[in-house]
Amino acid sequence: MTDAPESRIRDMEAEKARASAWFAELRDMICAAFERLEDTQETGPHADLPPGRFERKETRRAAEGGGEGGGGVMSVMRGGRVFEKVGVNISTVHGQLGAMAQRSLTARKEIPGLAEDPRFWASGVSLVAHMRSPKTPAIHLNTRMFWTPGAWWFGGGTDLNPMVEVAEDTAFFHGVLKAACDRHDPAYYPAHKAWADEYFMIKHWNEPRGVGGIFYDDLCTGDWEADFAYTQDVGRAFLDAFLPITEKRRTESWTAEDREVQLVKRGRYAEFNLVYDRGTKFGLETGHNPEAVLMSLPPEAKWP
Amino acid sequence: MTDAPESRIRDMEAEKARASAWFAELRDMICAAFERLEDTQETGPHADLPPGRFERKETRRAAEGGGEGGGGVMSVMRGGRVFEKVGVNISTVHGQLGAMAQRSLTARKEIPGLAEDPRFWASGVSLVAHMRSPKTPAIHLNTRMFWTPGAWWFGGGTDLNPMVEVAEDTAFFHGVLKAACDRHDPAYYPAHKAWADEYFMIKHWNEPRGVGGIFYDDLCTGDWEADFAYTQDVGRAFLDAFLPITEKRRTESWTAEDREVQLVKRGRYAEFNLVYDRGTKFGLETGHNPEAVLMSLPPEAKWP
Repeated sequence: MTDAPESRIRDMEAEKARASAWFAELRDMICAAFERLEDTQETGPHADLPPGRFERKETRRAAEGGGEGGGGVMSVMRGGRVFEKVGVNISTVHGQLGAMAQRSLTARKEIPGLAEDPRFWASGVSLVAHMRSPKTPAIHLNTRMFWTPGAWWFGGGTDLNPMVEVAEDTAFFHGVLKAACDRHDPAYYPAHKAWADEYFMIKHWNEPRGVGGIFYDDLCTGDWEADFAYTQDVGRAFLDAFLPITEKRRTESWTAEDREVQLVKRGRYAEFNLVYDRGTKFGLETGHNPEAVLMSLPPEAKWP
Repeated sequence: MTDAPESRIRDMEAEKARASAWFAELRDMICAAFERLEDTQETGPHADLPPGRFERKETRRAAEGGGEGGGGVMSVMRGGRVFEKVGVNISTVHGQLGAMAQRSLTARKEIPGLAEDPRFWASGVSLVAHMRSPKTPAIHLNTRMFWTPGAWWFGGGTDLNPMVEVAEDTAFFHGVLKAACDRHDPAYYPAHKAWADEYFMIKHWNEPRGVGGIFYDDLCTGDWEADFAYTQDVGRAFLDAFLPITEKRRTESWTAEDREVQLVKRGRYAEFNLVYDRGTKFGLETGHNPEAVLMSLPPEAKWP
């Protein structure tokens, strides 16, 4: 925040409004694209189902002391032809960071003035899609802006979780992300890919949960416009990277064994989310609606 | 440790040997009792399966720096008539507590000399049974002795997890535990029941995971014999409290809706274990075999 006046760091109401409006726009683009995929799925064992549709539900966050701390909207589609369960949650929350959440944040970096004024504001979209067909990959997207009176930053990422890796799809996914990153800074893709490789690791199994993607957090170059533009492009790249893979794989046939592989893989996914995922931990610790926070859990999973 | 000489606190090899021998004996009693239940299940949708049998597998714990840090034996029965998946793990581990595990322990209580000499030894049995019939309750037992050069303590507990509560079974389960506790100290049952009510709470849903039982930790009255005897009685009471309920309910009929209720309840159980369970966190943080640590996860679960 090198050239921003103190007052602008302290409120940033205009930036917050633009960020949350973008997240709502992105959510709408995603939901529309996913419903189009449902409409065009005319083969496979679930072709006789009606095309899935998102249902929206408002969620409230209970703030400390019983006050209101913002909330969000869950968009959930269940039992579709292509998507077995997908949640696209948008949330804009604010309040005072509790001691545990303060410790989590300041363990990563210094946040000026947080101890004296622990207010925060955060807005973003979080998406996890568990697919009907084991031949289509599960997918995750998170994109957010975070603000405290002394700091602001962007974070997010997307990673692909095929049940069995298809090298061609992995290469395509990473290629689209790289192109989007490179338009902003040639250092971003290698750095944010490496971060994803580290972050999306199921440490206790010493195994990656999927085939990676990009992940970044605490992004604050001092140029809010530039960082916001990058975050917007990551959101757009998510659709460009994911949709063609699903489009291509959704009509491939699959067996009962493929389904077992999928259910076991989903068990590992649930382990990651409950043990390591930063957003899940933050959501549960700050009292957000657990139904929204845990929308990422698979509809069905096995630990055989 | 009022009357124990310093040297006795520092090694306690005889007590460690007696504790781990007891845990092995308890494990054998439990496995034998569970296999007898499998033999007597002659009705119900899975009566045509062969009676389930435990398989044993050694597990090793990788200590810091690549050394050997003890290990254990997993006893696992899968796909039985009564037990869909049950793991009875015994482990005896030792080594140096890492920084994270030290912080977890000293957040609860002072441990003299831990910073200078972070050695530890721990032995115990951990059991989770996920049942075939939704009419029989899932069950959990943990019982352990923990040692550091400056302290020792016992901990453990058991809690009943019916898919739908049966008041009579809850009363029976608690009655057996109370009788065992009362033989040692009339204050134990109320205190350890209250601790279980607090501990086995799925905080983010503000809902108990089951119908409770008892839980205690950091038990060190200074009289090792008395505390060990109590811990042994809790192990015996577990069998007396659980077996009659399962014996009674195992032949009751159940529906596809009952199964759905069971799968959803198991999802919540998995959430508890991965987000809150002290043993799971300790096991994953200290590098124990993840297959053993996560044996508690249900064979199948749903988040619809």
